[in-house]
This record gives sequence, C-alpha cells and structure tokens, in this order.
Amino acid sequence: MKPRIHVITLAVDDLERALRFYRDGLGFASARVLGAQIAGDETHAAGAVVVIELERGPVLCLYPRSELAKDAGVPRSAPSRTELSIGHAVESRAAVDALLAEAEAAGARVTDRPHERPWGIYSGYFEDPDGHLWEVLWNPALTA
Amino acid sequence: MKPRIHVITLAVDDLERALRFYRDGLGFASARVLGAQIAGDETHAAGAVVVIELERGPVLCLYPRSELAKDAGVPRSAPSRTELSIGHAVESRAAVDALLAEAEAAGARVTDRPHERPWGIYSGYFEDPDGHLWEVLWNPALTA
Repeated sequence: MKPRIHVITLAVDDLERALRFYRDGLGFASARVLGAQIAGDETHAAGAVVVIELERGPVLCLYPRSELAKDAGVPRSAPSRTELSIGHAVESRAAVDALLAEAEAAGARVTDRPHERPWGIYSGYFEDPDGHLWEVLWNPALTA
Repeated sequence: MKPRIHVITLAVDDLERALRFYRDGLGFASARVLGAQIAGDETHAAGAVVVIELERGPVLCLYPRSELAKDAGVPRSAPSRTELSIGHAVESRAAVDALLAEAEAAGARVTDRPHERPWGIYSGYFEDPDGHLWEVLWNPALTA
C-alpha cells in the first residue's frame, strides 16, 4: 500500500452546522456540498457531503455520522472526543495564539491554551462543533 | 485560517500493535517511534508517538488515546468506529479489490466489500486494529 492519503472524512451530527463552522467560521472558502441529489434510505447512505479543497494534500470532507455508518457497514457509535487530532502548523508562537483566538471567536471550544510541549513545539487545541480536535502548532523544525 | 493540514493523528489503544499493523501489515515503511524518551505522568502526556511520512501532504501519527486526552485537555472517550474515514485512491477497480485483500491478510477487518457507490466511485472499507476506517476507492474522475 502506498503511503498516501487522498481524503479525510470527519463524521458530523449536523452537516449544516459543520459547513457553517468550517466555511464561515474558520474561513475555508472552498467548502461546498456535493451529492445532495442522492437520497439514502434505511440501509443506503445518502450522498450529501461537504467537500473542502486543501492547499496541499488530501481533501477534507464532512459527512453525517449516520451515513458513514451505513456506507462503511459498521454500527453507528456514540461520538468520541479522543479519536483523532488534526495538526495545523503556523509560523510563530504569536500566530498560534492568534489562530486559537480566531477559532474561539468562530465558536470553537479551546480545550487547551497554547503552551510549550516537551517535544519542542508550542501549541494549543480547539474542538469543532462535533468534538474533533485541531492542534494549532508552531514547530521550529518545520516550515509552516 | 489557511486550508491546510500538516498532521493527522489517530488515537490508538496499543501503540506497538498499531505500529506493527501500519509498518509491517500495510507496508508503511517509514513508520517509526519518536519521543519515547519523554515520560508522562497522571496529567502530562508522554511523548512516544508513531510517525509515518506520507508521499504527499500531511504526516500520519499514531498516539495513545490516554495521552491525546491529556495533551488536548479533554476527557478520554470510549472508542468510536464512526468518527472518521481516511480515503486512499487507487487506479482501478482491480486495485481496490487487491488492496482490500492485502489489508485483510494483514489483519484488518473488511467492513464493506467493494462495490459501486451512487456518487460514481467503486470502493470498500477496512478498519485498522483500533477501529479507524479506511476507504479504498477508485474514482474515475481522479488520477490516483
């Protein structure tokens, strides 16, 4: 298997709320709904998905949890706040602070205020409306 | 916020098991443990994390759920099988079938055998040992 990822899909419980948060709150302007014409039923997943083009790498999708369960053939689970984290690197400590403040103003819950971590980064965390963690980080070893 | 992702971290309940699955099972040869020298405690997260370099885009990390909870400042949740899905595109229907078979041979549970989806792709799903979904897909509209 080639070490590649093409899509990251986050399960959400309210697609419109998630769209508003990512598009209007965080400012991911490319966010759009695709597949809304495909109606699901009890066993077949509906098509409506929010697709967000990223500048590099994979596409970010937001998809209803109920439909992901049907599409993947697994039982729907209760949400978990400790299943994943998405890391977003910026160019300075000040940029970490600013972005966390911006996310908070957009309705995100900041779960951990920025501070130095023992592995050499400065970061803080926020959660999206569905409890998906984002870590905003400055890593001196990376070019943001 | 720039539409970029630099890291995807998946929470796992057994770091060694996850390392073996991704490195030896799926064949992500770059997988290595970093940060093992940083010991945590009741409130501070330990450093050991599996880091996997991908060919394009973000770094994939595997990190203990207990440590993610401490690092992010959120309560540890029970695992959820419907929190996310990672999409991996290949070049043909036959490649989807082959890769699902390979993942199954490596110990993955195939949750949905490959079939055509109404939105124009051919795909199937497997779960890693921690219940994280991977969708292996052929999308005629994409170059794999």
